[in-house]
Amino acid sequence: MAKEFKKEYLVKKSENFSKWYTDIILKAGLADYAPIKGCMVFRPYGYAIWENVQKFLDEEIKKAGIKNAYFPIFIPEKLLKKEKDHVQGFSPELAVVTMGGGKKLAEKLVVRPTSETIIYQMFSKWIKSWRDLPLLINQWANVVRWEKRAYLFLRTTEFLWQEGHTAHQTHDEAKLETKRALDLYIKIYKEVFSIDGFSNKKSESEKFPGALNTYTYEMLMPDNKALQGCTSHDLGQNFSKVFNIKFLNEKGKEEFVWQTCWGMSTRSIGALIMSHSDDNGLIIPPKLAPIQVVLIPVFKGGKTDGKIEKELKKIKEILNDFRVEIDDRKEYSVGWKFNDWEMKGVPLRIEIGLNELKSKKATLVRRDTGKKEVVAFSGLKSKVKKIMDSIQKELFLKSSRHLKNNTKDVSSYSEFKNIMKKEKGFLKVFWCESLGCEEKIKEETKATTRCFFSVESKKEKCIYCSKKTNNKWIFGQAY
Amino acid sequence: MAKEFKKEYLVKKSENFSKWYTDIILKAGLADYAPIKGCMVFRPYGYAIWENVQKFLDEEIKKAGIKNAYFPIFIPEKLLKKEKDHVQGFSPELAVVTMGGGKKLAEKLVVRPTSETIIYQMFSKWIKSWRDLPLLINQWANVVRWEKRAYLFLRTTEFLWQEGHTAHQTHDEAKLETKRALDLYIKIYKEVFSIDGFSNKKSESEKFPGALNTYTYEMLMPDNKALQGCTSHDLGQNFSKVFNIKFLNEKGKEEFVWQTCWGMSTRSIGALIMSHSDDNGLIIPPKLAPIQVVLIPVFKGGKTDGKIEKELKKIKEILNDFRVEIDDRKEYSVGWKFNDWEMKGVPLRIEIGLNELKSKKATLVRRDTGKKEVVAFSGLKSKVKKIMDSIQKELFLKSSRHLKNNTKDVSSYSEFKNIMKKEKGFLKVFWCESLGCEEKIKEETKATTRCFFSVESKKEKCIYCSKKTNNKWIFGQAY
Repeated sequence: MAKEFKKEYLVKKSENFSKWYTDIILKAGLADYAPIKGCMVFRPYGYAIWENVQKFLDEEIKKAGIKNAYFPIFIPEKLLKKEKDHVQGFSPELAVVTMGGGKKLAEKLVVRPTSETIIYQMFSKWIKSWRDLPLLINQWANVVRWEKRAYLFLRTTEFLWQEGHTAHQTHDEAKLETKRALDLYIKIYKEVFSIDGFSNKKSESEKFPGALNTYTYEMLMPDNKALQGCTSHDLGQNFSKVFNIKFLNEKGKEEFVWQTCWGMSTRSIGALIMSHSDDNGLIIPPKLAPIQVVLIPVFKGGKTDGKIEKELKKIKEILNDFRVEIDDRKEYSVGWKFNDWEMKGVPLRIEIGLNELKSKKATLVRRDTGKKEVVAFSGLKSKVKKIMDSIQKELFLKSSRHLKNNTKDVSSYSEFKNIMKKEKGFLKVFWCESLGCEEKIKEETKATTRCFFSVESKKEKCIYCSKKTNNKWIFGQAY
Repeated sequence: MAKEFKKEYLVKKSENFSKWYTDIILKAGLADYAPIKGCMVFRPYGYAIWENVQKFLDEEIKKAGIKNAYFPIFIPEKLLKKEKDHVQGFSPELAVVTMGGGKKLAEKLVVRPTSETIIYQMFSKWIKSWRDLPLLINQWANVVRWEKRAYLFLRTTEFLWQEGHTAHQTHDEAKLETKRALDLYIKIYKEVFSIDGFSNKKSESEKFPGALNTYTYEMLMPDNKALQGCTSHDLGQNFSKVFNIKFLNEKGKEEFVWQTCWGMSTRSIGALIMSHSDDNGLIIPPKLAPIQVVLIPVFKGGKTDGKIEKELKKIKEILNDFRVEIDDRKEYSVGWKFNDWEMKGVPLRIEIGLNELKSKKATLVRRDTGKKEVVAFSGLKSKVKKIMDSIQKELFLKSSRHLKNNTKDVSSYSEFKNIMKKEKGFLKVFWCESLGCEEKIKEETKATTRCFFSVESKKEKCIYCSKKTNNKWIFGQAY
């Protein structure tokens, strides 16, 4: 018995954004809650998106000469404690192993929240001379930062990521590497995720514990809250001095290495879901879609003698440059399938019925706009290519417009407070860069510094304390 | 200053096998000891081999319609305890998290030693009807089984693997899946790892805790000890009954699903290293080699005006079907490089010097045989292809010969004991399949049942108790 069409309505995006977000994830089968507080399960459809992200990132990382490696998930507590700022930053979030092999451990092991300490301990062993530099390492791994309640993809106790760790002879070289990693992230967010954003330096209070400087890509979600997409850190010699990572330079003199680290996680998929989807479910840009085109046989009654099935296979063959799936399941009705694939955000649906067979034309329906088009079989390949490119681009343009329309220059603090109370968004303001003003603003408006924006030629008053400054920063309420 | 040639001799394989094995790993840069007891670091060169294994396996897994997913690393203790045999099997090896987010946890969390319990808890939520079956899932993950001392790749507290988990409507379907997974492993070991072995059922005492039947691929290392390469388990309905994984069949009746699981880990790289390498270092079959061909400029004095460098680039371009690296480092001498790439087991070295430039012929040196050949530039592509195929095949034949020469039919227990004391190897013997005999044999000879071999038409005496049986089993001392 075929499962009949029954539209499972989502709550509207405009009505309850956070419920809408979670419902899409559960209904599209991207993820599920795990029977452990704070944890989630990546279901196949959600994991396939991550695999596409990995493929793109891994290729670029390898092209840059960086090599993948793998370090232990456990970090001895004393190793983690070596860098003071670092351990302070991560202490409240740690999961700690105290029993191993049936016995109480003499030294507690921390489940990695990030891997600087364990990796740099090894760096100090491996790096001896300038010949060993630059050392360029990346790791794909799971990390754990304690959360009481999971917010699917965005805040979970365990998440997946890549973490790059590099060591160089000079600070200039390390700075270039920090920039190179940030550029890679900007590229993937703009070209692959189709999400526009701002990228620049973080404030002192928002930077990575143990870094000289942290760079970020900051996106604006449809509810006008900010989401940090990645970070790239210039570590200077902070860690190399603590972990004693020294090299003999070409003149035979001992020096500490200069380091960087940078990471991007499965959190990015949360941003993806929020940014593009609508009241009918998920919308995924073609470059990340696990299935780019779904072929659905449509007919009511009448015999087709397997002709439609044959045609579907032929079309799949024609479209073999794309990720195509034929949905010929007998146990579901056509209406149910349309609904299901819309919920799953497949960029393009192609319908083939008896009419289509006769006319040798297929009916194409775009997920992002709902636009229908009838296309001759012979022109399908080039048309699908065009539609994929168009969806990828138009999703970015839509994201860009949202960013532009919701980023405002503000010069009075009362206006700032007002906006943060109501519509939110990114606010570009002059800020004196003092921690005092930053904390007060956060306390009073929930807005934090997202990233640096520009040095203006003319000095203006700090939005909070009125002290004159050239520096403009972007503020927003963060996820 | 170029680093001069100084051959770092390995201890001989024949003199101290276990030291030879560990030294190769450290000197070839495959892995290193971590600053945590029982743990290791996968250095880039070792991790790249694992990436090649993953690529092959992942492709085959996807082709079979199995989808990747990701489940939490933490398993609540009570979930693990649900299946009695299962928890008994893994209890002594567990790492346990008792603190999270700065607080003592109300319920302890186990770091996954394997993921049946957490995955099947989710299966019970996801599977409702026959429409949801078969459910075919694979996970690439790190797992933890406590070890006091690391034996690199072979025995480490944390290792990497894939674990497949499937649920079916019938036992027949599940049995087929168990077989399909085993066949995949046989294929990868024979065709990719170039290691011959026996594949069949495990004995009752050696099977997976909670399985009906376990299948394995058993290899014989050069020291004549056995190494288990993978396992594929027919779980029957053991877990579905415990985790209440039921489905409504097409007739509307409720049934428990039939399950399988199967896994292969980074342990396989230990087998790879042991099987093929020699007194000069690693030997890697081309399909798994991170670098298949290394191009080395060779010349003494004289100016080359960059001609050699240009030629190397041209040759790399010609060989772009292969993983090729040019080693034009100025800081190392030619002799040092030869030694280094031999240690690293790169299948083919190509030398280009002034003579080669003049004659338009390159000097090729095979890693496995040391055989030298001079080949015209124009014929390089097809020649390299032939050599790669030949190395891949000949390593397998060598492994096959070793297996054949060291697998013996034995009918007297005194001979059995004698062989296990001296040369070891696989012994094919009649065994009555009683636990008593199995335990006695293990106690007295350190040999365990590796896998079932055959049902013979004529009954013979059990090697230990003399009871008549048709069943022949393979025994060996295991790693």
